[in-house]
Amino acid sequence: MQILLIFFIAIALPISLSAQSPLGLNHEETHDLRTLEKEFDSHIDRQDMHVWMREMSSRPHHIGSEWNKHNRYYIASLLESWGYEVSLDEFNILFPSPNIIELELISPLKYTASLTEMPVDGDVSTFNTSELIPPYNAFSIDGDIEGELVFVNYGVPEDYELLERFGIEVKGKIVIAKYGRSWRGIKPKLAAEKGAIGAIIYSDPEDYGYTVGDVYPDGAWLNDTGVQRGSVMDMPLYPGDVLTPGVGAVKGEERLDIDEVQTLTKIPVMPISYSDALPLLSSIGNEVAPNEWQGSLPITYHLGPGPAKVRMRLEFNWDMIPIYNVIARLEGSIYPDEWVMRGNHFDAWNFGAADPISGLVSMLAEAKAISEMVKNGYSPSRTIIYGAWDAEEEGLIGSTEWVEHNAETLKRNLVSYVNTDGGSKGFLNIGGSHTLENFFNDIIKDVNDPSLNVSLFDRKVADLLVNGSDEEKDHIKKGNDLRINALGSGSDYSPFLQHLGVASAHLNFSGEGDGGSYHTLYDTYEHYTSWRDPDLVYREVLAKVAGRSTLRLSESRILPFNFSNFLDTVNLYLREIKLLSESLRLETRNVNSLLDEDIYRLALDPAKSFSPPRKTPNVPFFNFSILDNNLDMLSNAISIYEKAYYEKGIRPENIIYLNKLLYQSERLLTRDHGLPNRPWYKHHIYAPGFYTGYGVKTIPGVREAIEENDFEIVDQQIIIVADIIKDLANNLLDASNLFY
Amino acid sequence: MQILLIFFIAIALPISLSAQSPLGLNHEETHDLRTLEKEFDSHIDRQDMHVWMREMSSRPHHIGSEWNKHNRYYIASLLESWGYEVSLDEFNILFPSPNIIELELISPLKYTASLTEMPVDGDVSTFNTSELIPPYNAFSIDGDIEGELVFVNYGVPEDYELLERFGIEVKGKIVIAKYGRSWRGIKPKLAAEKGAIGAIIYSDPEDYGYTVGDVYPDGAWLNDTGVQRGSVMDMPLYPGDVLTPGVGAVKGEERLDIDEVQTLTKIPVMPISYSDALPLLSSIGNEVAPNEWQGSLPITYHLGPGPAKVRMRLEFNWDMIPIYNVIARLEGSIYPDEWVMRGNHFDAWNFGAADPISGLVSMLAEAKAISEMVKNGYSPSRTIIYGAWDAEEEGLIGSTEWVEHNAETLKRNLVSYVNTDGGSKGFLNIGGSHTLENFFNDIIKDVNDPSLNVSLFDRKVADLLVNGSDEEKDHIKKGNDLRINALGSGSDYSPFLQHLGVASAHLNFSGEGDGGSYHTLYDTYEHYTSWRDPDLVYREVLAKVAGRSTLRLSESRILPFNFSNFLDTVNLYLREIKLLSESLRLETRNVNSLLDEDIYRLALDPAKSFSPPRKTPNVPFFNFSILDNNLDMLSNAISIYEKAYYEKGIRPENIIYLNKLLYQSERLLTRDHGLPNRPWYKHHIYAPGFYTGYGVKTIPGVREAIEENDFEIVDQQIIIVADIIKDLANNLLDASNLFY
Repeated sequence: MQILLIFFIAIALPISLSAQSPLGLNHEETHDLRTLEKEFDSHIDRQDMHVWMREMSSRPHHIGSEWNKHNRYYIASLLESWGYEVSLDEFNILFPSPNIIELELISPLKYTASLTEMPVDGDVSTFNTSELIPPYNAFSIDGDIEGELVFVNYGVPEDYELLERFGIEVKGKIVIAKYGRSWRGIKPKLAAEKGAIGAIIYSDPEDYGYTVGDVYPDGAWLNDTGVQRGSVMDMPLYPGDVLTPGVGAVKGEERLDIDEVQTLTKIPVMPISYSDALPLLSSIGNEVAPNEWQGSLPITYHLGPGPAKVRMRLEFNWDMIPIYNVIARLEGSIYPDEWVMRGNHFDAWNFGAADPISGLVSMLAEAKAISEMVKNGYSPSRTIIYGAWDAEEEGLIGSTEWVEHNAETLKRNLVSYVNTDGGSKGFLNIGGSHTLENFFNDIIKDVNDPSLNVSLFDRKVADLLVNGSDEEKDHIKKGNDLRINALGSGSDYSPFLQHLGVASAHLNFSGEGDGGSYHTLYDTYEHYTSWRDPDLVYREVLAKVAGRSTLRLSESRILPFNFSNFLDTVNLYLREIKLLSESLRLETRNVNSLLDEDIYRLALDPAKSFSPPRKTPNVPFFNFSILDNNLDMLSNAISIYEKAYYEKGIRPENIIYLNKLLYQSERLLTRDHGLPNRPWYKHHIYAPGFYTGYGVKTIPGVREAIEENDFEIVDQQIIIVADIIKDLANNLLDASNLFY
Repeated sequence: MQILLIFFIAIALPISLSAQSPLGLNHEETHDLRTLEKEFDSHIDRQDMHVWMREMSSRPHHIGSEWNKHNRYYIASLLESWGYEVSLDEFNILFPSPNIIELELISPLKYTASLTEMPVDGDVSTFNTSELIPPYNAFSIDGDIEGELVFVNYGVPEDYELLERFGIEVKGKIVIAKYGRSWRGIKPKLAAEKGAIGAIIYSDPEDYGYTVGDVYPDGAWLNDTGVQRGSVMDMPLYPGDVLTPGVGAVKGEERLDIDEVQTLTKIPVMPISYSDALPLLSSIGNEVAPNEWQGSLPITYHLGPGPAKVRMRLEFNWDMIPIYNVIARLEGSIYPDEWVMRGNHFDAWNFGAADPISGLVSMLAEAKAISEMVKNGYSPSRTIIYGAWDAEEEGLIGSTEWVEHNAETLKRNLVSYVNTDGGSKGFLNIGGSHTLENFFNDIIKDVNDPSLNVSLFDRKVADLLVNGSDEEKDHIKKGNDLRINALGSGSDYSPFLQHLGVASAHLNFSGEGDGGSYHTLYDTYEHYTSWRDPDLVYREVLAKVAGRSTLRLSESRILPFNFSNFLDTVNLYLREIKLLSESLRLETRNVNSLLDEDIYRLALDPAKSFSPPRKTPNVPFFNFSILDNNLDMLSNAISIYEKAYYEKGIRPENIIYLNKLLYQSERLLTRDHGLPNRPWYKHHIYAPGFYTGYGVKTIPGVREAIEENDFEIVDQQIIIVADIIKDLANNLLDASNLFY
């Protein structure tokens, strides 16, 4: 009966929708799209990708380097040769490159850190070190300091809580922290907040080296001289050029004075290898570090402070340099003002075969395949844009400046942004806006894993059914879409999603072919093709997935945003936050009462200096009701919208307006005032954590206020999110009214 | 009203009980006992303990050694000088001492294991190595073998399951396993079952060395040459002299031929240090071991087999030697046929300052204090016996032979056995029969922690409230007694409890002052007084606790067995077993269905040789109802008994019979036929695990049948336990009838 009705409506109304199609296409159009995708697949050529990867990763190509310039023109000329309209968008940014980097253990014994990554047999690239940028942390301040060492484990907030219980302060000391558990920039940020005067970060073999697997060249993992470079700019405050927050760093734009910049570190910080860390750590004395803090160097790790004392000398060239994003456009034939964008950065720390070239070659293969299809007569409905970003490694600078500079146009025209970056093989991880969750589920059902004769979807389902949490297993068994992850930071989607409010996604294969070469000398073509994705087969699959997302976003009549999954996910986040506040309330009450009754002390070894934790403020009850109510409102609006979508029709003249409502819906999740203390981050559902860095915090205004004991602002942050949800509901009601 | 009634009954009947006293004493008698205990405390002298420890641990004193003989006479003459009636009870046992112990890596490179523990500065004892017994595993068979190495992690059942998934067999190979996670004898037992031809066991620094803490002499932990000696006799089958299972190894008793003995290892096995393990492990190739298997040597651990190939040569002197338990008696003045026994072994692997002397000096201090009280007029009501056991280290031989030889007398007369052994400081761990749980709770409320001004009970409660599981916190908050642990094996309580069915306990301080000297050269007086319990203050407290247990067991009018706690605990074990069978059933069904649908394979890396697990038999439903019903019956019987105890009186002439029913109640928990496949173990509530060794399995017949997929015998094992519970219930009804 219902089927008949739909059929009747479908033929009675101006545009008939394929009842099951989330792309707003009828059966024939859907079939045509599938044919297009088959053609697309046939143009993906792994030989191309090998050639491009080998070429671009043959020399170090950090920003400002000769090979960075070479790659820029190489990419531009490839894209141009394929028929794209290419521009090199220039920005002028502050770039600190290393001048002096020195570290010396000055007591109780002398040791000068080598800070030098050694070439390895079997990888010729690693012998080509003359153009290498030495290991350093970009946007550390200069400094020449001496101080006793304190070992702070990963240097994350709970590590300092434990140190406090040992009675150990880092004030006036230099901390040495392991890489991992947080984004690296959090480590000097927290250390400085606690009064440290400097920070050293090293890669423990437990996390990156021999304990994880055989080290390079016998395996993919980090050998003892490898050092992870990386930016320590305070990106959770704002990424991009440090002198031009919120605006594009073009010539003529006003710039901050360097001493006004908030995103430089407050203390000098440098990275070292585990061979350089060993003499330092083994010279630290006093309390033995807790068992969970012991790494896998063959020593007992102590906390200090001292007797190990070091001198750190850091001096950078604080130069203004030009950077260039390579932007390629293919004008849409039906909706030229609706832009579908893909991006991947092209700058690297060194050879960068994995990071970023392994993602970039997939994007280039996609661009080439689409150009081949254009030669065969295909004409994209929407405008397709490819962005190869410069200066990502220093702090998402190329993409951020481009986004900031073009903010108004992008807000108006940009439908979506899909990002890739370095990766390996295994399982496809999808992160992004949950309005795109169903869209990507459909895609990965249509693309097969190259090693096993099943879809990417089926492989991921298998992984969750075997290794997932009970909640995940349950979610899958109920036949729901696979959940995609919320995005924090760490690659170029961040300005699109969190600053502009453009629905975004990030695609990445991992879980197999992992290794420890990240940001070291050893991220070479040889390493990549030995250990990460030897035949680039997962590069090919990545191109197929991302290419389908480009094609479908371009060719859908009604853009494939789905709000049920979004609602389900926000409800999940809200449940998490309620549980968080509840468990924090119970735990605080319990710990405080154990402290009041002096029970904590009795459970501790009286011969040791480890004391009970401090009392923390009791957690009040928060008013979630307004958000609950508005989520109910959204749920109703979604039902109305979906009923309209599947049961009614729409006139052609309303399509553009409908799609505008759909793709601009993500903008509604932002607020101009941004998040507390960091106005650059405007999205109120997804943000990188203020104290985790890359790691995402969902509904960040509310969640972080609870986590940071900033209880006064919780209710007001809940109201902001509730308003956002109401705006989205109203937007969907507006969209529903376009059907009839 | 009720109080008045009790009072009335109390004065109207022959014996009045102190209404709240679990010792069957009236207020005045209870007060007298407290006075006695205060006097007892005043006689505990730490200076004595220092002298005794220093003397007995001044030279190595393994069985058959000169200093073992010296200590035997030293202990005997001390006890004799205090007025005890002392005997040296001789047994003649088979003792394999090392003749040839050699280990060589023969490919891919040559390395001869040093097998030598190096003396350390600051500990003069460690230079006295001429009398040292070299590192070896007692009751390994002889052998001269060559084979490729396979790394098997801890060599426990789940490790072999994982190896099987890697497609790796140990058949014809030599396994190298870490010490830990199971009793050491399990490792060669399992390896042999899997077809290995030899086994090497080493102490990984992650568990015993630098990763846990500073190594000796800078700290308490194991340095790189230290080797843990120890018996690998198959004690879960039967402990004691291997030639005389079930009977005392006295002259004239028939003995098995050596080739009939079931408790020797099936393959040669030897222990090594982590410095000797390093070249072996780093020569093993092939698959990288799983992350959880990586220890903290600075290498990547591989699984093998090979290319590392070793030659092991082991040759032992299979000598018959005499051993002597020192048994000291103090005849009871009222109930001479009711015996209260304390025990601690005196033999060691080397210097043995911690193991066993740190426990032994507490027992001697207790015996001396009681003798002082006797000089002051005290006369124990029951007979008190102290046993200093020989040959514990080789397999609980001294105690087991004594128990087997005296089985009938002991079953008739022995009220209880309380054991001590090596320990350090921190929290008092009590293991034992749950009928003694309430008894020990009362004691530890009366003895203070020496470092903090609270009772041992309060400290333990604090530990649980801060660090315990939710179940433990809940149990404590409801005002219940602290749970004591069930006993597996590992010290001399085992024959008393599990072979005879004598209510037993084991007392031990740990959690602070821990270290890695166990069974190595470094278990010296210097080590002990530097790191474990420097001023022997916890030795003093141990004496106070154990002494109170001796005094109260001797002086109680009605023996302090409490059956409510026993019932509560058996119910807990039964819940665990039901949960175990339920979760095993669900997990098996889930894994089997993932295998049937080929989902498991899709979650694994197709480039690796790691395969899905095997299918296992589905778990049927078991009939627990008979046990549930009989536990209900026991619950009723306990109510009746407790009502009688607290509300009625008893005639003096019935006291002896009542107490016999009480202390023989533990015998009812045994069956002559013993456990499946190991008739020596007669107790059906507590046993060491067949595949865990020291670790306890409660309700072992049922639990292990489920764990080992031996589903056919589960119901019949449930019936045995149900019968036992019924016998206990009837016994309590008999006891109740003695009150009126």
